[in-house]
Amino acid sequence: MDVENPPVPSAPTWARACTLQTPHGQIQTPIFMPVGTQATVKCLTPEEVQATGAQIILANTYHLMLRPGSELIDSFGGLHAFMRWPGPMLTDSGGFQVFSLGHLRTLTEEGVTFKSHLDGSLHLLTPERGLQIEAELGADFVLPLDICSGYPCTPQEARQAMERTHRWALRALEAFTQRPHRPERPQALFGIVQGAFEPELRQESARFIGSLPFFGLSIGGLSVGEPKALMWELLRATTPALPREKPRHLLGVGSPEDLIMGIDLGMDLFDCVLPTRVARHGGLFTRRGRVNIKRARFRTEHGPVEEGCDCYTCRNYSAAYLHHLARAEEQLYYRLGSIHNLRFMLRLAAEARAAILAGTFPAFRDAFLASYVPASETAREEQRVKWLARMASRATSS
Amino acid sequence: MDVENPPVPSAPTWARACTLQTPHGQIQTPIFMPVGTQATVKCLTPEEVQATGAQIILANTYHLMLRPGSELIDSFGGLHAFMRWPGPMLTDSGGFQVFSLGHLRTLTEEGVTFKSHLDGSLHLLTPERGLQIEAELGADFVLPLDICSGYPCTPQEARQAMERTHRWALRALEAFTQRPHRPERPQALFGIVQGAFEPELRQESARFIGSLPFFGLSIGGLSVGEPKALMWELLRATTPALPREKPRHLLGVGSPEDLIMGIDLGMDLFDCVLPTRVARHGGLFTRRGRVNIKRARFRTEHGPVEEGCDCYTCRNYSAAYLHHLARAEEQLYYRLGSIHNLRFMLRLAAEARAAILAGTFPAFRDAFLASYVPASETAREEQRVKWLARMASRATSS
Repeated sequence: MDVENPPVPSAPTWARACTLQTPHGQIQTPIFMPVGTQATVKCLTPEEVQATGAQIILANTYHLMLRPGSELIDSFGGLHAFMRWPGPMLTDSGGFQVFSLGHLRTLTEEGVTFKSHLDGSLHLLTPERGLQIEAELGADFVLPLDICSGYPCTPQEARQAMERTHRWALRALEAFTQRPHRPERPQALFGIVQGAFEPELRQESARFIGSLPFFGLSIGGLSVGEPKALMWELLRATTPALPREKPRHLLGVGSPEDLIMGIDLGMDLFDCVLPTRVARHGGLFTRRGRVNIKRARFRTEHGPVEEGCDCYTCRNYSAAYLHHLARAEEQLYYRLGSIHNLRFMLRLAAEARAAILAGTFPAFRDAFLASYVPASETAREEQRVKWLARMASRATSS
Repeated sequence: MDVENPPVPSAPTWARACTLQTPHGQIQTPIFMPVGTQATVKCLTPEEVQATGAQIILANTYHLMLRPGSELIDSFGGLHAFMRWPGPMLTDSGGFQVFSLGHLRTLTEEGVTFKSHLDGSLHLLTPERGLQIEAELGADFVLPLDICSGYPCTPQEARQAMERTHRWALRALEAFTQRPHRPERPQALFGIVQGAFEPELRQESARFIGSLPFFGLSIGGLSVGEPKALMWELLRATTPALPREKPRHLLGVGSPEDLIMGIDLGMDLFDCVLPTRVARHGGLFTRRGRVNIKRARFRTEHGPVEEGCDCYTCRNYSAAYLHHLARAEEQLYYRLGSIHNLRFMLRLAAEARAAILAGTFPAFRDAFLASYVPASETAREEQRVKWLARMASRATSS
């Protein structure tokens, strides 16, 4: 990895622009990674995902191991070929989903046993098994199994989870080194920093994971329900303890304002279902904040959702047409909305990169945050609870 | 309209190939028209619909008058501009939907009063009002309000409905002639042949409607639950009574085998939601019949759904990937399945046209029908009942 901007000793920002090489092409950071949970970025073809400016996507190990199964995907030449994504790809560890979606979890030193949210079948995920599944999926970047604490948790629980995550990281590194050689499918392993909601633990974890021979570092366990201010405080404590020469991935974050904040705090890679999920519920990003396309004021709006936006949706359709499709629950809306929000995130990341390279990121950040009105924490929390309830009811009914 | 193949006096087929001119381009028949019920061919962009070979689409007056409203669409320059469909378009009369979706209908000589299935609001549709709405929508071809009898019905009910449809046809012609002149939006009016399930009434209606100065003729009230054999018997009685020089549209038909049968019986234009609806439920067309992509046998199928198919889906994705998406209820599946089935219908229509022009349609027809196994009537009926039940439950819950 090359860090392209010069280090600034007394930094008004930790933002940085890097270039990563992968077997499926270059990645220029900071970058947002659309999430292709079930081997598809919801509603979109790979061509459409690429047209939003996406350079790398993330897929979920938990979902894919359950359906259609990693062996099957392997037999199709891996996930790239199965879903026809030509660029770089990252698979997560499955840990977060086991804890948020799986049922009846039993956590031991060996790993975690859980019931599938699809059919109730029992599965054991260990650091070794996780990497085997990820080898079958064949992403360029893979993550080791970790333990994601819920918010809130006690400092003692946080330490226990972190220490086990560290022991699992060592086992994962060992398994990764020992795994059968597949020269056609080179992979790079990231380490996951945990430490829950304790700044000291976050630093300890950053130093420990950062000292191991991982290719990159993912910051896990944030944006899981804690207040935003706490999340930024924890990240602020973490970044200085990370090695400068490795790519840094902020797991499961986030919204447009989170992207800018995370870049400012020295993160390179971001992933989140939020842009596509809120789009499906009517929430579309604009420079001034998120708007709800279902609102009556869009009924007669001849212009696009956002004037000047270069996405396929805004270049071609009126806000009124999107309003109509969204109200009528037409599938075309989910797609046009997803395209808009992904393009918004990827254009924002590209603009941030340009500003970093030009040495003007602090001004860019301040201008963006001054004009972008974030969705309120209450609205976010309500949405999260609604989503979890729906997932739970789906799991029960299946 | 030009009929391009020479008439065959003692015809082994009534199939014909024609070219229609419209303000939005030429149509080469026989052709299948994808249905864009709510100002969108479900799941697809206009570019994708065009890529399936579609030359003309149909939109539903009933749905659009209720949501978003024809005045609104008019203010956007009509339906072409609102939904961004550049080619020819036909709007139906709303009659069929009033009778199948609307609640608490009151039918008088003036028109039909019904409650919206969306919000229970009361609406009056008359032949005059229908054409006013269709003028606001701005399709190239428009249809007058008609009465569609349910199956079965008595000969007396059939005659009453037909005679009122005829009186409404005269009123529609009068209103069409008298309507405010909008030179930027030329339209052509089709007449609708009714007569329910009585061959004599069908002939009488064909002669009457055929004698009026309509641009084309739509055959209505078929494929509404009657046995297939009866439908073909009725059409066989109708065609000879139709003027040869006008385009003939078989409303709401159909499946691949229906397309071939209808072409054989002298029809030019076809429309039906079936190809896209069955696709969304997993049913995909192949030369040998409809297959269900959710079946276990597709789980490991490396090839496309149909070998040699030139649609975007088959050119790019394995049947196994479609199987996975369909099982996971991923929206990308609905789209890929719809593309495949629409392309199947449009390629079939194009092949039929080529065979007609080459003078080989009877052999083409026989070969197709010999290899294509249609979905059983039972399966069709079950699907229809399920669909009606779902629509009813939606209407109740809204």
